[in-house]
This record gives sequence, structure tokens and C-alpha cells, in this order.
Amino acid sequence: MSPRSSFAEAARTRDRILRTAVDDASRIGLDGLTIGSLAERLDMSKAGVVGPFGSRENLQLAAFDRAGQIFRAAVVEPLGDLPPGADRLARLIDAWIGYLAECPFPGGCFVTSTSTEFDGRPGAIRDRLVESVTAWRAFLDAEISAAQQEIVGAQRPPSEVVTALIGISMAVNQEVQLLGDLAARARGRAAMRAAAGLPATPG
Amino acid sequence: MSPRSSFAEAARTRDRILRTAVDDASRIGLDGLTIGSLAERLDMSKAGVVGPFGSRENLQLAAFDRAGQIFRAAVVEPLGDLPPGADRLARLIDAWIGYLAECPFPGGCFVTSTSTEFDGRPGAIRDRLVESVTAWRAFLDAEISAAQQEIVGAQRPPSEVVTALIGISMAVNQEVQLLGDLAARARGRAAMRAAAGLPATPG
Repeated sequence: MSPRSSFAEAARTRDRILRTAVDDASRIGLDGLTIGSLAERLDMSKAGVVGPFGSRENLQLAAFDRAGQIFRAAVVEPLGDLPPGADRLARLIDAWIGYLAECPFPGGCFVTSTSTEFDGRPGAIRDRLVESVTAWRAFLDAEISAAQQEIVGAQRPPSEVVTALIGISMAVNQEVQLLGDLAARARGRAAMRAAAGLPATPG
Repeated sequence: MSPRSSFAEAARTRDRILRTAVDDASRIGLDGLTIGSLAERLDMSKAGVVGPFGSRENLQLAAFDRAGQIFRAAVVEPLGDLPPGADRLARLIDAWIGYLAECPFPGGCFVTSTSTEFDGRPGAIRDRLVESVTAWRAFLDAEISAAQQEIVGAQRPPSEVVTALIGISMAVNQEVQLLGDLAARARGRAAMRAAAGLPATPG
């Protein structure tokens, strides 16, 4: 095998392990991920599973990062170069709600589950979570501030709207994953638009 | 020992096991609860821990119910016989936010963590969760409908406000438990009041 194809092969293996790890972790929690169960699911040796990452914790961190990439690809990247403002915030809300209603992870929103799982456990995963949630809040705050420039009428502080939007996303995740509520999508979208001060009927 | 005192003793033991189980489960998840670790923490035999419940799953269910009682004692019971309406909803919001900010469980809101932990795992615990979340949503819906009778101006549908309030409670739980954000309490209270259509400055 040439060095190039061996490199590509290693990347494919890493990718295959991560896809399975993200799927499993969304169902059983990031802490429930064991090298043994992954090896069994992937029909690989334990050494083959952990090798590309160096340790179980690094594999967990890589799975968390991969889940973040999947989220951004679904929710943030479609915004493209649309300028910040009310239209862009409305599109972001639509994509976010769509992601929750047709979740790419079998066990529902990854960051929400990991957050309740790891909030009380100091360590590298909790640190990565704090970083990720803090960055997402800052991103939303900027989007909401830009949208509010275009919205007529009294506005709530952007940080309060951030709390409402993130909260509604968590509630919708529960309604979809736990209650199987088919109305969750439309209701959550309306709740997010109301919290953001966007008109009830989209233009 | 008389039968009466032996009964009281058994109730105290059961209570002691449940308190530890609820504390542990709020940190490590309800599924993380093992009879072995509880026995060690309580300095009891495994048979002594599981005995009063009959099975590990019954102990998990009893811990879930106990957490619900603690929540209701903090959030619902203080409402006493206050008539349904805007004042009662405002008091409910204050108590709910207070409960989240000074959470009686070391690992944060119990139902939220259990929900993300068990939403993908069919069984008795998931069934109890669905029942509990459904009952809480119905309770809030009635409270919001009563409050809206007294609030002037356009109102959002009660079920949408339920989603917003439950969501904001989850976001505040994350801000307190994961981010250690001291502003979470005031911000969450303002977000809940805004979602419920209550005036920004309480009377």
C-alpha cells in the first residue's frame, strides 16, 4: 500500500469509528461509550478502535467534536453569506427546529444530553462542553442583536433571548425524543419566533 | 422490637436509601445507580439496599418519584390555595427559578437529566418519565390559561408558553450547573415572565 492510500485508509477507519461512536453516544451517553462495545459493533479489535485516538477520553472528545460539526453543517452553514439580521435569524430558527425534528442522532440532541451527563464531572469533556456552549451563546447573541436592529418595537435583552432559544430547543428535543409529539416542530418554531420578536407569520 | 417500631425502622431505612440514591443519580444518572455503589456509600449489604424495593429498577423508579416529590414541595406546594391567575403563575415562576438556582440535587434538575438519559430506552423508567412530563405540561397549561384571562393584550397559545417555560427551565439548569453563571437566575426569571406575558417588573 502506498503511504498516500494508507493515510486515506486510516482516515476512513477513524471516520467509521467516530460515526458509530456518535450514534451510540447519542443513545447511551458519552460516558456509556466503551471501547469494548465499539469494537464489537465495528467488528474490530479494541486496540484498533482506540489506536487512532490514543485514549478513550480522546475518542469521546473527538465524538463530541464530530457531533458539533454535524450540528453546524445542518444549522449554521446553510446561512451561507446571508447578512446578519431578522431574515437570517428566521432561517437559523427554521434550520435549528428542522434539525431537532429530524435529528441526525438516534438518541436526540447530542450537546443537551452530554451537558446533563457531564455538568457535575470536572475534566476534559466538561471543559470542552463549557467552551462549546459558551461559543454557541456568543454566536446567538450576535445574531439576535443584529436582528433586533431591524425589528420594530420593544425588545428583550439579547442574552435573555439566547436563554429562551436554547431552552426552547431543549424542550423541543424532549417533546420529539421522549413524547413523540408531532406538534413539537410547529409549536417550537412559533415559540422561538415569539421569543426572538419575529412576526408570528413568516413573510 | 415491637411491630410498630420495626415498621418505622424499615421506613427510615428506605428513606435513607432513597435520599442517597436521588443524590447519586442527579450526579451520575439514574442508570449509573448500582446496588453495589449504593451499598458502599450507605455502609449496608447489597441485599439490605435492594430488599425494601425488590429490584434495582423499582429502586430507580422510587428515586425518580422521590425527586418529583422534592420538586413539587419546592415549586407547587408553596402556591397553597392561591386562586389560579397571573399572581399565582408569577409565584410559580419565582419558586421554579429559585429551585433551579439553589437546586436540592447536587447534579442539577433530575427530570431533565433523566429525560435525556432515558428518552431512547423503552421500559418502566421511560414510561414513568412520559407520565410525569405529560402531567407537568397539563398542569402548566391550566395555570397559563387561567393567567391569560387576567392579562391584557395578545397572548400566545398556552401549549406554546408551556414549551417556552419548560425550555427556559432547562436552559437555566445548564447555565447554573455547567456554566456557573450567576446571572442565570434573574435572566431566566425575566425570560419566563416575558414568555408568559407577565409584566417585566413584578408588582
